[in-house]
Amino acid sequence: MSLDKLFNPKSIAIVGASSEEGKIGNVIAKNILELGYGGEVYLVNPKYSEIFGKKCYKSLGEIFEDKPALSAGMIDLAILAIPAKFVNQEILNNSKNIKNYVVISAGFSEIGEEGKKQEEELKKIAKENELNILGPNCLGFIIPSLKLNASFAGGMPEAGNISFVSQSGALAVALMDSAKKEGIKFSSIVSIGNKMEIGEVEMLEFLAQDENTKVIGMYLEGIKDGEKFIEMAENVSRLKPIVILKAGKNEKTQQAIASHTGALAGDDEIVSAVFEKAGIIRANNLEEFFNLLKLISFSRTVPNQKVAVITNAGGAGVLISDAFNGKKIKLAELNEETKNKLREFLPAESSVENPIDLLGDARADRYEKTLEVISEIEEIGSIICLLTPQQQTPVEEIAEEIIKFKNKTNKIIVTVFLGGEKVEKEILKLKQNGICNFNFPDLAVRAIDGYSQWNEFRKIKTKTKTQMINEKRRSIILEIIQSAKSQNRQALYFEESAKIMALYGINTTKSFEAENYQKENFSYPVALKIDSDKILHKTDKAGLILNIEDEKKLEENIAKMKRNFPGSRFIIQPMAQKGTELIMGIKKDEIFGPVIIYGLGGIYTEVFRMVDYLIPPFNLKQTEESLMNGKIRFLFSGMRGQKKYNMEEIAKILLGIGSLALEIPEIGGFDINPLIVYNNNQEAIVVDVKIII
Amino acid sequence: MSLDKLFNPKSIAIVGASSEEGKIGNVIAKNILELGYGGEVYLVNPKYSEIFGKKCYKSLGEIFEDKPALSAGMIDLAILAIPAKFVNQEILNNSKNIKNYVVISAGFSEIGEEGKKQEEELKKIAKENELNILGPNCLGFIIPSLKLNASFAGGMPEAGNISFVSQSGALAVALMDSAKKEGIKFSSIVSIGNKMEIGEVEMLEFLAQDENTKVIGMYLEGIKDGEKFIEMAENVSRLKPIVILKAGKNEKTQQAIASHTGALAGDDEIVSAVFEKAGIIRANNLEEFFNLLKLISFSRTVPNQKVAVITNAGGAGVLISDAFNGKKIKLAELNEETKNKLREFLPAESSVENPIDLLGDARADRYEKTLEVISEIEEIGSIICLLTPQQQTPVEEIAEEIIKFKNKTNKIIVTVFLGGEKVEKEILKLKQNGICNFNFPDLAVRAIDGYSQWNEFRKIKTKTKTQMINEKRRSIILEIIQSAKSQNRQALYFEESAKIMALYGINTTKSFEAENYQKENFSYPVALKIDSDKILHKTDKAGLILNIEDEKKLEENIAKMKRNFPGSRFIIQPMAQKGTELIMGIKKDEIFGPVIIYGLGGIYTEVFRMVDYLIPPFNLKQTEESLMNGKIRFLFSGMRGQKKYNMEEIAKILLGIGSLALEIPEIGGFDINPLIVYNNNQEAIVVDVKIII
Repeated sequence: MSLDKLFNPKSIAIVGASSEEGKIGNVIAKNILELGYGGEVYLVNPKYSEIFGKKCYKSLGEIFEDKPALSAGMIDLAILAIPAKFVNQEILNNSKNIKNYVVISAGFSEIGEEGKKQEEELKKIAKENELNILGPNCLGFIIPSLKLNASFAGGMPEAGNISFVSQSGALAVALMDSAKKEGIKFSSIVSIGNKMEIGEVEMLEFLAQDENTKVIGMYLEGIKDGEKFIEMAENVSRLKPIVILKAGKNEKTQQAIASHTGALAGDDEIVSAVFEKAGIIRANNLEEFFNLLKLISFSRTVPNQKVAVITNAGGAGVLISDAFNGKKIKLAELNEETKNKLREFLPAESSVENPIDLLGDARADRYEKTLEVISEIEEIGSIICLLTPQQQTPVEEIAEEIIKFKNKTNKIIVTVFLGGEKVEKEILKLKQNGICNFNFPDLAVRAIDGYSQWNEFRKIKTKTKTQMINEKRRSIILEIIQSAKSQNRQALYFEESAKIMALYGINTTKSFEAENYQKENFSYPVALKIDSDKILHKTDKAGLILNIEDEKKLEENIAKMKRNFPGSRFIIQPMAQKGTELIMGIKKDEIFGPVIIYGLGGIYTEVFRMVDYLIPPFNLKQTEESLMNGKIRFLFSGMRGQKKYNMEEIAKILLGIGSLALEIPEIGGFDINPLIVYNNNQEAIVVDVKIII
Repeated sequence: MSLDKLFNPKSIAIVGASSEEGKIGNVIAKNILELGYGGEVYLVNPKYSEIFGKKCYKSLGEIFEDKPALSAGMIDLAILAIPAKFVNQEILNNSKNIKNYVVISAGFSEIGEEGKKQEEELKKIAKENELNILGPNCLGFIIPSLKLNASFAGGMPEAGNISFVSQSGALAVALMDSAKKEGIKFSSIVSIGNKMEIGEVEMLEFLAQDENTKVIGMYLEGIKDGEKFIEMAENVSRLKPIVILKAGKNEKTQQAIASHTGALAGDDEIVSAVFEKAGIIRANNLEEFFNLLKLISFSRTVPNQKVAVITNAGGAGVLISDAFNGKKIKLAELNEETKNKLREFLPAESSVENPIDLLGDARADRYEKTLEVISEIEEIGSIICLLTPQQQTPVEEIAEEIIKFKNKTNKIIVTVFLGGEKVEKEILKLKQNGICNFNFPDLAVRAIDGYSQWNEFRKIKTKTKTQMINEKRRSIILEIIQSAKSQNRQALYFEESAKIMALYGINTTKSFEAENYQKENFSYPVALKIDSDKILHKTDKAGLILNIEDEKKLEENIAKMKRNFPGSRFIIQPMAQKGTELIMGIKKDEIFGPVIIYGLGGIYTEVFRMVDYLIPPFNLKQTEESLMNGKIRFLFSGMRGQKKYNMEEIAKILLGIGSLALEIPEIGGFDINPLIVYNNNQEAIVVDVKIII
């Protein structure tokens, strides 16, 4: 249901309101009554008849007693700060008349089994009665533009355009307190607590439509319902930037899992892949998170990938150049015309390369004129003004020039005023004039880079069409799987997998059962493999013999294998031409569903985890982008005089695997190892594929 | 010469002193006269007879005119802030009487050819007359404990234990200004300008002995005389920590260079390897630099690798846990006994795992008691106290408990008080009581990690003995090189290189000249290779044919190679057993001299630059540490059921190459590609080695 009334209520009831200092119900009541909220407020607590000179009701129900006819629309929102054990009943009792709730109370799923049961019951009540419930176990929310602080955090932040959604109430409090100092302003602050009903997905959906919200910042420890999340975030990202600080990066020790390729995937790397797909700007730490929100909130335009830097200290210029390493944004190259314009007024010892060094004795005029020159350069989207407060530096005048410039430019302009006392006042002034100052050079670069990446996403990435499920293909495959299952197998035979591959246009090597093989079917050399659903890593168990050169050796090896693996099935395959070995697989991620993992084959890939990720659904363009920017990009650049590999061919195979992952969620694990690709126009070929069912 | 009198002068002459506001000579004179310096001060400027009511001399010479007998010891230091063209003559004129100079004046090597000439002349004057000259083109220096500001930066920082040496004057100014705000205090601030005579090496030597200096912080854009730097830094690091912010990380496009392995080396990676060898703590950016200096300056003890975290917000705890990823320091595991002690007073919902979560309603007593419990755990060296200012949080009382604890503990205790106004006052109080507060959780972790790494260096790393040059070996090798040179060759033949390898106990594959080979010398399969000093990358040019199986094929291939490379020399080698291929090489770094580079062989290594570095001289222990922590460490861990490789054998080969690099600096490039190593007790063998002369 719409969250409009929850976050923009005309009337609020506070259940558990209290006059007792220190009680949560006391803080919330004061916050709502004393900070300027203009709607109707009802106080509820059976212990009191009056609080703060206002009538206090015994229960929510009592409010409606006088006016039963009006009851249904009377109270938009009830906030519950009462012991957990009373919460469910109170909500159930009023579920007809009140549709929106904030449950502050702790004591639900976070405390263990009993709490979990109660939370499930509450969820059921919500569903059956079509209620919106924020929490339980949350701090509440704050909407500064309404002067509404429906939380037990103190104070009222300034109204602005950042919406901050936090899975941690304490961090929300700390951020609010920092924000004041930093001039950061909010459209809303929402603590989502246990995310029973309203989590990141619901908040994204709501905030996408919230006109006051320019940027959505989220602190998340976990993500619920990953597949929905991806879809929602991808849609919302087209409208406004989402910045997420995802905590809990600690690499879990990967359990031995059915999919071999899957074991290569780091949970946190998958989160990054998901965020990239959905256009989410990932903050790597709290400082970056603050800085990204600040930059986006302050900026009237969106940065492109070219940046100019102006500095009065060479050293600071070198440091900021370093910060561009590994970033997508770049220092713009200045052309001769620009350089000549700069030379007209800058001293000979200045640097007219970007970063432009105005020298330590620069006064405001050099900043002013340099900004003028840069303002004419179309391709530059952002300007970083560095300043160190040297003896001759008129910090205030320079700040004023920057402010003047900001008011007439359509470029993003940010500052890095290094120092303490000597720049403090001016940094404040810059902020008041809507200019973002960063404490260190690299922080500015990182923030612009993040924001600019969102711009690229919005500009370039086309929306993936929901993949059409090919029902015919699906039914063929399900039949194969069913038949294998009926034989109590946990994996398909190579031949069965090859059939499935063919349905996706993927080429596999020929194979022949070793039992009663027909000599005329193949020529030597061949490989002999065990084709068992038990032995997954063939090389580990000597279940694979390569380069068998004649029939005699083949017979010998078949006999040997039969001894080693009695009762197993074996297959003969012609040896494939040498080429570059790739691996591809599907990992069933617990949170995000199927993830395609691919990379170079061989033991070193495994050691070095040289893999990339694709989150289905994805289209050809997205796949090629992944290939072009990923770890095997060198295959397509003609490194060391080698011929380039066929990117489109590899992309199409990945597309096929992506379709398979979506069409047959029944598959438990999937590995191609290896796929051999060639740079001599020979067709890529899957030499081994294992499908776990 | 000793820099004692330069940095602790009893008397100073200021040449170019001026009463004119805004002039550098005015600022310096005021700084020295008005900020409390207690020594004798002489002002020199031909334009004035009196400045600030003090006699002004026409020249330095004039000062001595009255008292020629006393002249030699009269002035410890002269500071020159006069146009560059007068500097050399003025110094030369007084070189008998004054031995220490600071040349503030710009206009030397930094402006191009003419300035370079003048700087060289000045350097000569300094050398011939045994003078110490700081600069030219520098800001000067400041010694707070002497109240001596011999610079044109304003103000007088508080006296403390950090020495900051900066290649950028502007950054020094900015740091000083920030420092005041952060409570950072200095033993000295030195701007080294053009580093003509006094650079990082000389400053390290001086500061190592300076009793007031606990930690040396350096901002460097380049490093002069790299080999001396390594030796000096390694020695000084055993006494006190060195923190360096090295700017200029931008990867240069690597030119095609003679050494193949050398091309794999990133300049910045070599800097990192050098810093690690020398025990230097590398700051990756300005913020880290500040934080490291602050932490070391404030701490009375040195952190070990175990940390405890206390928090009143679960979210902040999760974030700080993330920050430990990839760090050497770790969150200590708490044993049951400790957990039980914590459970005695913490609420049931608290977390008694590390980070210890005291919950949002924690008051000072929970912090106090938890600190008590941790104080008893021997293995924990550092404690990070996180705090978010929640409604119920008594920030001041908690700060006081932390201060009390700090005064009785021998552990390092730092804080991360998140927020703005609500924590500002207390952060100040913490600082005043010698407790370091960090603005964000990960900054605390990074600083402790850096400091702790220095501790490990100091504790564990043994000093490398200066390698004995084996003169006999050297002369044999020089003879081989000489003979090749006399044939106008730029590289040695395989056979010659193999001889050299043997001198270092390194095993190479047998080889036979293809011209008139003796059949009985080898058995098939063999490889046929071109052995030319022109063709360096054999595989690129079809100069290598592997797996030749019989004499007929060998003859055919010899004929073919002769056609392709007329007039070249070819060799036949028995094919080595398959194993794991490594590469090893020597890069002659322009700054740091020879660097040993090693890694896995194969094309992917090259693409992914999977290499590690060793800076000679190094010993067996250091080599094994590098192997154990480096990119090929998986060879020694028995990954995926493989047998382990022999680490000592590989280490000894690297040791040999290290000796070669030091013994024969005449070698222009050196590549082993591949060295094949085995995990079946077979001896490692060099299959190809190329020595450029």
